[in-house]
Amino acid sequence: MGLEDKMEKYVNVPFRVRYAETDQMGVAYYANYLVWFEASRAGYCRARNYPYTRLELEDGIYLPVVEAHCRYLKGLRYDQEFYVRTSLKNFRRRSCVFEYRIHDSQSDLLCAEGWTKHLFIDRDGKVKSFPKSAEGHFI
Amino acid sequence: MGLEDKMEKYVNVPFRVRYAETDQMGVAYYANYLVWFEASRAGYCRARNYPYTRLELEDGIYLPVVEAHCRYLKGLRYDQEFYVRTSLKNFRRRSCVFEYRIHDSQSDLLCAEGWTKHLFIDRDGKVKSFPKSAEGHFI
Amino acid sequence: MGLEDKMEKYVNVPFRVRYAETDQMGVAYYANYLVWFEASRAGYCRARNYPYTRLELEDGIYLPVVEAHCRYLKGLRYDQEFYVRTSLKNFRRRSCVFEYRIHDSQSDLLCAEGWTKHLFIDRDGKVKSFPKSAEGHFI
Amino acid sequence: MGLEDKMEKYVNVPFRVRYAETDQMGVAYYANYLVWFEASRAGYCRARNYPYTRLELEDGIYLPVVEAHCRYLKGLRYDQEFYVRTSLKNFRRRSCVFEYRIHDSQSDLLCAEGWTKHLFIDRDGKVKSFPKSAEGHFI
Repeated sequence: MGLEDKMEKYVNVPFRVRYAETDQMGVAYYANYLVWFEASRAGYCRARNYPYTRLELEDGIYLPVVEAHCRYLKGLRYDQEFYVRTSLKNFRRRSCVFEYRIHDSQSDLLCAEGWTKHLFIDRDGKVKSFPKSAEGHFI
Repeated sequence: MGLEDKMEKYVNVPFRVRYAETDQMGVAYYANYLVWFEASRAGYCRARNYPYTRLELEDGIYLPVVEAHCRYLKGLRYDQEFYVRTSLKNFRRRSCVFEYRIHDSQSDLLCAEGWTKHLFIDRDGKVKSFPKSAEGHFI
Repeated sequence: MGLEDKMEKYVNVPFRVRYAETDQMGVAYYANYLVWFEASRAGYCRARNYPYTRLELEDGIYLPVVEAHCRYLKGLRYDQEFYVRTSLKNFRRRSCVFEYRIHDSQSDLLCAEGWTKHLFIDRDGKVKSFPKSAEGHFI
Repeated sequence: MGLEDKMEKYVNVPFRVRYAETDQMGVAYYANYLVWFEASRAGYCRARNYPYTRLELEDGIYLPVVEAHCRYLKGLRYDQEFYVRTSLKNFRRRSCVFEYRIHDSQSDLLCAEGWTKHLFIDRDGKVKSFPKSAEGHFI
């Protein structure tokens, strides 16, 4: 299997809409999707055997978001079960893009999709290359 | 002054970063920008003498977000004062786009920019034209 | 087994600290504990085969929080796994109290404890007795 | 004016309920009150000419919450203006208590009340005395 094939792999992370995440329109408030994206990125890294904490604590590397996008197709209701299908795209030396698709767990219906672009920086905020030792887990 | 000119107008809404809004990277967590965008939209409507509550309660019209985008240029720190410059773009019969620029209050430096696209729907979720009576306030 | 014994039963709901939930002190922000309490109440109801949604949608009964308390013993870090041990106390005609204990999943160490008091109200906000049909699931 | 008198002083910090802060019950979600308490504490320190940031950055002192309590009397609706009346109680060598009263801005009606207890700790999490230089601003 080539590197590219591995890149295609996705990870599904399951969630339920919390009451806190609803708003008075009766559906999940739109900013929470970015929170689920983040928790899904963490799930993605964990599934690749390289928890995000390890990047921060051992490698001293941080992945701040420099751009985020979300398209909302179908509102999510309180207690609704859904999963976020996460994949890593455009893994470059100093940046990467994660893609997300939110699906209803019962029907598999696509409810939202989005992406986030990240820079690799060190503790002082300087752009940094992704650590070689970690690379194998992601590409 | 033509309609187009009025459309160009922006509204500045001031904020301060709350402790709740920071994360362990020491800056504001990226999803909060969408919350500030929302509160700024509300400020925009208020400045136009048509509070968002009036749209929901009197006109029975809701403006769910169907797409959101944000570019993060400079992290915001705890207690930092900033303002969101909000303007209304592409005000159409059944949708509109709000644009936002987040500036540091001291330096006026641009820290982030983004936009949200909204549909106009009624209480049952059906697409609806923007109420004529309210239109004059926005275009 | 008597009613009282059933009342003693608890439900454990597992969580992980999200990045969004940390603050610049490097631990979970204190208001999030109330969010976890809420999601744990939902887990409790589900485990009793009476999802909270059923109370709202079928029985038209709501359980707003009228009082909340939390004692923070040990900070929770990003990605830390913990569980909330939830039990129902003082189940009365028009109110009830949920109790929560947050434990680290690895060590079982108690990290926080708290409670919430709830009123039973109908859609119009009037105090209401808990539905007879649902009662058997909770006491 | 004695020390005790100064202690009695309160600071009012104004807010508006954000859409993000509502839930599907149509009122502000209960955990947000703790966020407003926090922002009000910050406002309190600022009003005393000792911003909380100064405590953290200059004095290396942190005030984690060790206990929190809130009583909810009247739900807050979207866009509702309210203020939090904050006062400092039981300012001791290694801990203090802040008290909060949330009032509707129009009617001055009391909508909620609560308190938070804080420890003084240094960067390593060790209990520490409040800095002498800062004390005069608070007692």
